[in-house]
This record gives sequence, structure tokens and C-alpha cells, in this order.
Amino acid sequence: MANKPSIPKGTRDFGPSEMARRNYIFDTIRAAFRLFGYTPIETPAMENLSTLMGKYGDEGDKLLFRILNSGDYLKDAPDSLLETKDSLALSSKISEKGLRYDLTVPFARFVVQNRNDIHLPFKRCQIQPVWRADRPQKGRYREFYQCDADVVGSDSLWNEVELLQLIDYVFKCLKIRVNIKLNNRKILTGIAELIGESDRIIDITVAIDKIEKIGVDKVKEELLGKGIGEEALEKLMPFLELKGDNKEKIARLKEVLKTSEIGLKGVEEIEWVVGHFDSLGHECGLEVDVSLARGLNYYTGTIIEVKALDVEIGSITGGGRYDNLTGVFGMPGLSGVGISFGADRIYDVLNQLELYPEAIEESVKVLFLNFGEKEAAEAIKLVKELRLKGISAELYPDSAKLKKQMAYADSLHVPYVAMIGESELENREVNLKNMLTGNQYKIAFSQMSNQKFS
Amino acid sequence: MANKPSIPKGTRDFGPSEMARRNYIFDTIRAAFRLFGYTPIETPAMENLSTLMGKYGDEGDKLLFRILNSGDYLKDAPDSLLETKDSLALSSKISEKGLRYDLTVPFARFVVQNRNDIHLPFKRCQIQPVWRADRPQKGRYREFYQCDADVVGSDSLWNEVELLQLIDYVFKCLKIRVNIKLNNRKILTGIAELIGESDRIIDITVAIDKIEKIGVDKVKEELLGKGIGEEALEKLMPFLELKGDNKEKIARLKEVLKTSEIGLKGVEEIEWVVGHFDSLGHECGLEVDVSLARGLNYYTGTIIEVKALDVEIGSITGGGRYDNLTGVFGMPGLSGVGISFGADRIYDVLNQLELYPEAIEESVKVLFLNFGEKEAAEAIKLVKELRLKGISAELYPDSAKLKKQMAYADSLHVPYVAMIGESELENREVNLKNMLTGNQYKIAFSQMSNQKFS
Repeated sequence: MANKPSIPKGTRDFGPSEMARRNYIFDTIRAAFRLFGYTPIETPAMENLSTLMGKYGDEGDKLLFRILNSGDYLKDAPDSLLETKDSLALSSKISEKGLRYDLTVPFARFVVQNRNDIHLPFKRCQIQPVWRADRPQKGRYREFYQCDADVVGSDSLWNEVELLQLIDYVFKCLKIRVNIKLNNRKILTGIAELIGESDRIIDITVAIDKIEKIGVDKVKEELLGKGIGEEALEKLMPFLELKGDNKEKIARLKEVLKTSEIGLKGVEEIEWVVGHFDSLGHECGLEVDVSLARGLNYYTGTIIEVKALDVEIGSITGGGRYDNLTGVFGMPGLSGVGISFGADRIYDVLNQLELYPEAIEESVKVLFLNFGEKEAAEAIKLVKELRLKGISAELYPDSAKLKKQMAYADSLHVPYVAMIGESELENREVNLKNMLTGNQYKIAFSQMSNQKFS
Repeated sequence: MANKPSIPKGTRDFGPSEMARRNYIFDTIRAAFRLFGYTPIETPAMENLSTLMGKYGDEGDKLLFRILNSGDYLKDAPDSLLETKDSLALSSKISEKGLRYDLTVPFARFVVQNRNDIHLPFKRCQIQPVWRADRPQKGRYREFYQCDADVVGSDSLWNEVELLQLIDYVFKCLKIRVNIKLNNRKILTGIAELIGESDRIIDITVAIDKIEKIGVDKVKEELLGKGIGEEALEKLMPFLELKGDNKEKIARLKEVLKTSEIGLKGVEEIEWVVGHFDSLGHECGLEVDVSLARGLNYYTGTIIEVKALDVEIGSITGGGRYDNLTGVFGMPGLSGVGISFGADRIYDVLNQLELYPEAIEESVKVLFLNFGEKEAAEAIKLVKELRLKGISAELYPDSAKLKKQMAYADSLHVPYVAMIGESELENREVNLKNMLTGNQYKIAFSQMSNQKFS
């Protein structure tokens, strides 16, 4: 029994000082969601596997944490699967539930299940942990938080503009300098159409993405190696060599995609979004990037990705428009667009840049030291008075040695220490010490709750 | 694929209006925790089963949700268990992790694991969901929140007094009238010692608990039926007939327990706690109740239970002192005391009594209707200005029919609707409607963000 305890790999405990930092992030995002009119929902940690399976690709299915059925779960399991030790096939017989893998699929399920109670368009936000049985590594955890904001039931591009503003606002509040990359799935479809390689979008975008690192020539080489023909490659060149600011890129895209209806539609959409977002003003960078290809399985329009400028780390926020997410749950034709803030990566960025405001570590404002029962009985009355005024306060519970009590005060960064010893008790006054300045002064019991504790 | 989706039984979705109500509860409790100097921690949803097993009794072990190991989990499972379909024995071979069952055991594990970073006494709070594979029924869920506050590393009874104050404070804030029942495990031990039935404490307390309902005679009958002898029963009578206010009860207990050292110690402790709590003043009821026997497996001193006065529902908060919780993790001798607010039952109480403050349903303050792109482009600028002033605002994303947009405003209980049509655009003014009073008036664009939106 007395083994040193541990927690599952890829999971974390958060102590008081980590919580203070994390709550700063969550509170900032939550306040922004509210300011922008996104209303919160929560869904259960466990979903039926029928809800989760097949939504994240084969790889995703493997990363689901499955819950073992309760009771005699083997009773009805087919003997054949047990004999052959077929783990994969057996798991669907002995587990019906899994931990949620993201917040988007549970949200789609929520919308369909509660369709009669929801008024469209529905702007929802959701801040909850998700679980993935991924190999843990730096910056990748098996339990982490997502902070999602989505709008369903409206295909207006104003939603895209608002989500970009939300990103700009949140990172401005957090003082993280970021660059937003913007693409549109329709542009990618147009490119593939144009070069006659509609089923090779992913190869192509992966290659485009490498241009900055390895140069155009190497990229061409790579694509030839993957079986993209010379002619197709020639047609791809303008996209590989896309340069200039957003306006120039958009103008060039219009030109080279002029024979692709869907491609042009994508360019028009991105132009509209960039134009309105720019005219509202923003602090973050915004870059049209046709190599951005996240979420190709489900995004049908806008694609968004956010990178921190001052830290080498993957995307810290991402999202896009999906035209038919609720379709798999029997409710077709509902367009949605949303973004997800990666709270754990944002946490890593803030830690690395030390961008937390001062005094973020919450603690009690006033700690009353304990000099014995009679003194403590008076102190606890003042503690109560302070609390009723909204000032956090506490009594050290034991009449321990002064040194020990002061060490406790230090460990909590308590700004004010209040002492009521024998003589103070007699004079009905408190000996108050400002721990920052070192100043010490006496205050009558009756005046204590009128003090300003800054 | 197109089945109507559902969620696992015993779990719940929370939509915007339920979230508003639940957040009111959590925010109230969280603010109280902070005011009283309890610092937050969080632990992972998944714990190693070695941490969880054996801590909640055999019944509790059965109620743990187990996570199926990832990958080829059957590979090393013994053939014999598969052949005999021994679910119970197999589960320890194919699952190593479980969902946390409460917050107390993970807290104990946390303290031991982080012993070098923790300064004692450690006052921690924790608000997180827990999971139990219990049979779902009214008021009992498979996923529910606990809100715990504990102090470890101090055996001072001031901690008990503070926790009682915390209970009083939280329920005063929530406007729920409650009665706190207080007992001490040492009194129960003393009673059992006195009547020579040390191993029958539970039978005895269960019986005492029924007196109000079925009367003394029936209780005696029941105890005789359970094999408690006539002589023992005679000695038990004073406890069965304990009457009067707390002072009278305490005086009587002192008398009848005078030959039991541990019993007297329990009475002294309860007297001390009641005395100091009373002298500080409180709004809740406080009742010494020797039949209170919750958590007998681990509580070693004070036992606390809270009942709502105006709703028939089980305990809505409970707790007590445990002298050796971290012992099972290899860290003996650390005393702790804590309480747990049952957020889901409190939610049920508030719903039943309709005790929520008005205007708890958050929504945007100002909704701008959408009369087309040009008008919307001006509206979105004002939306941005309002948000920068901290006023939540949004633009209806589509230029839909007025009726549809107003229905949306109604569904969200938006207090102000702002309209910029063609003529307003020309005059650079907003047509603002107060949805509560029905008043409608014009405001210049430039004055919009200086308005008071109460």
C-alpha cells in the first residue's frame, strides 16, 4: 500500500501557483467569449462510442480512451474473440463509452439532440478538458483543455470576421504577439481542380508549406517524387511562388484561378473577410496562406490558424468553417464555423515569455497569527468582519512558534500579517505588519475592517 | 450513422440557461473559498487504479469507471481468465486507470506526491467532476461535481470552526436555509465502548437515527433483533433519549460518558467547536446529533452534515476530520479536516425553491440588427467600440427578415436592440430600443459607446 503514488503518464496535477496562472488564461478567454456574445454549454466527459467513432479518422479512433463496461462485461463477449485475443474487435463488445476527444463532435451531438431548445443561429462557447491516448511528449498531454467558440446556423462571413476579432482581442489581453494565417478550402479545391490532381490536395499543400524551409526547387523535386506530373507541376508554380501582401496575393489568386468556379468563390470569400477585418483594425498579423491545410477532413470554407511570434511552438489556436458537421447525426444542411484556443499551449507560451501580470498568485490579504486560544478567539472575530467586507483573511490555526507562522505567511506571499498578543488583547488593538514595506503599526479592533488593504 | 444521438445514462448536457444557474453556484462557492483562504488545485480525471482501489470499500471499488488499456490490451492477459470469462479478475489485467471517484483520495495522493512543494498547514480547495457507476436515479448522477475544502497538517479545532463558518457563509450567500448536524467519531467510539459493543457502532447509530421516525420502542426492538443484549440496550438508553439544546445534550453526554476517556475527549471537542462557532454568530442551525455516522470508515473526529430546511433531499454538504488519510500513500501522521459541497444537489434545491437572483441568464447587452452589408459594416464598428468598453455586444450575422432577428433577440433576453437602417446610416445614428421598457430613441454613432446600458 505504501508505494509512492503517481499519476498516469501524460496527465498533470496543478498546484496553487499553476492554478493561478491557468485561471488567468481561462478567465481571460471566458470574459472574451461573454463580451462577444458566446453562451456557455457543457457536455459529459463520457460520450457513447457510437457518437465518437468514425469522426476523427482511423488514427483518431485509436486514440480514444474507452471505458470498460460495468459489471460482468465478459458475459456476452463472443468466445471466438477471446480465444483469438482480438483486442480491437473485443473492445466494441466490452466498452460502450469513451472520453471525449474534442469539443466539436460533442457540440454537434448536442445541437442535434437539443434541436428543439436551441434558437439558431446559436453562438456557443465551451471550456472543458479532452482526452487523447497520444504518445505524451513536450507540449502534448493526454488530458488537456480546449476553449471553443462556434456559431452554427449561419453561413454569413461576418461570423468569420467576428472570430478573427475574438482571436485578436484574446491575444491582445494576454499580451501574446500572434500571426493569424488564413486560407479557404475552396481555394485548395480550385488549385487541385486546376492542375488535374483533385485527390492530391494534401500532398500538394504539405509541399507548398515547405517552401520557406527548403526552397522551391526541393519542393518540386519532392512532388515529382510523389508522382505529380511535370505539366501539373507547371500549373502549380504560381501557387508555389505566391508573394507579396494579402492584396497582392489575392489579386494573383484571382488571376490564376479564373477558370475554377469554386476556386474563385474561395478567393472572393477570403477577400471579403480580410477586407472587413482589416477595416476594423487589429493588432495581430494576418496572412493569407494557401499552404494552410489543417482539418481538410471537415473544413469546407475558411481555415484559420494562429501562431505565436515570439515562441517556437505549434499552432496555439485554430479553426474553420464546416458545412455539414451535424449531418452525421441526422441533421443535414447546418453550417458552422468555430475556433479552438489551445489553453495548454498558451500556458506554455505565457510561461516561457513570463507574461503574467504581477500579483497573480492569489492568497489571503490578511493572516492573523495565533498566540493562544484567548487571543485567537478575538482574532477570529476580526477575520469574520474582514471577510464580510470582502477582504480575504484567515487565522493561523495552531499557536505554533512565531517563526513557523511567519514562514507560512511567506510561503503564501501574504501581504499583511496581523498580530494580537497579550498586550494587544489588553489594549484591544492589532499589530499590523505590511509584509511588502516592512512597516508595522497598531490599529484598534474597531477600526480593522475599515482599513484599506491594497 | 443517422441515428438520433444520445448521451450515456446518468450524464447530462448543460445548455446556456442551466450553465448560468450552475455558474452562479460555482462562482459563489469559489468566491467563498478564496475569501476564506483556501487555494485551488486540480488533479487529473484519470488516476491509476492502484491509487483508487481499496479506498472506498468493496462497494466503491465496483463503482469505479475503468479505462481500457490502449493498444493490444489482451496480449498479456492470462488465457485462464479469458476462458472462464472472469470479468472481475480480468479487469485488473486490461485496465490500469480509472476515473476519480471523489476529490479526497486524489487530494491525499497529491499531498504525498508533492510533499516537497507544499507548505503545511495546507488549505486547499478543488472544484471538479467525479464519476461513479452508480444506478442513476432522481438526484443521483454518474457524473457530478464536488466542491471540496480541506486543511491538512493541523489538528487545531479552529479549522473545524472555520469550516462551519464557511458552510454558514456559502448558504447565506445562496439564500438556502440549512441545519448543520455535528457529531464526533470519538463520542461514537465512547458509546460503543461503554455498552461493550465496540464493533456494532454502525448498527447502533443507524438505530439511533430512526428514533424520530419510528420511536424509541421500535428502535429497541430492532436492536434486540440484531443481537444487542438487554444490558447493553439499557446502557444505550441515555443516548437514545438525548434531548434539549446543544448545551443540554453536551452536559448529559459528559455525564453518561464519564467513564470513557475517548468518549469524553469527543464531547470536549464538540463543546469547544460549538462554543466558538456560536460565539461568532451564525445564521444556519447547528445541532449536536450523536446519530450522525457518515464516513465512519475514515473520519476520526468531527463529523459534519448539512441539510436544507425547505426541501426534502439528502445531505447537501458533508465532511469531517480524518487523522490518517495520507497514511495509505506512505505519509503517516498528517491530520486533515474538510468538507464537500454537493453542487448538483444544491442545484436541485435552488431550482426547486427558485432562489436564483434575477437577470442571472447572461446574454449580450446590445444586439445590432443586420440590414445589409453597408449597414452591418458600420454596426460592427460600434460593436467593437462597445466591447472595448466592456459592454458585450454583437451583430446579427445575416441580413434576415426583421421578425426572425427580433425572435433571436427575444430568445436571448437581449436588453437593447440597435438598428442601423438606410436612413440611420445616412444620419450616422443608431435607433436604439430598450426591450424591457419598449422605449425607442436615436443616438449618434459617436455617442454610442458613452451610453449607459443598465
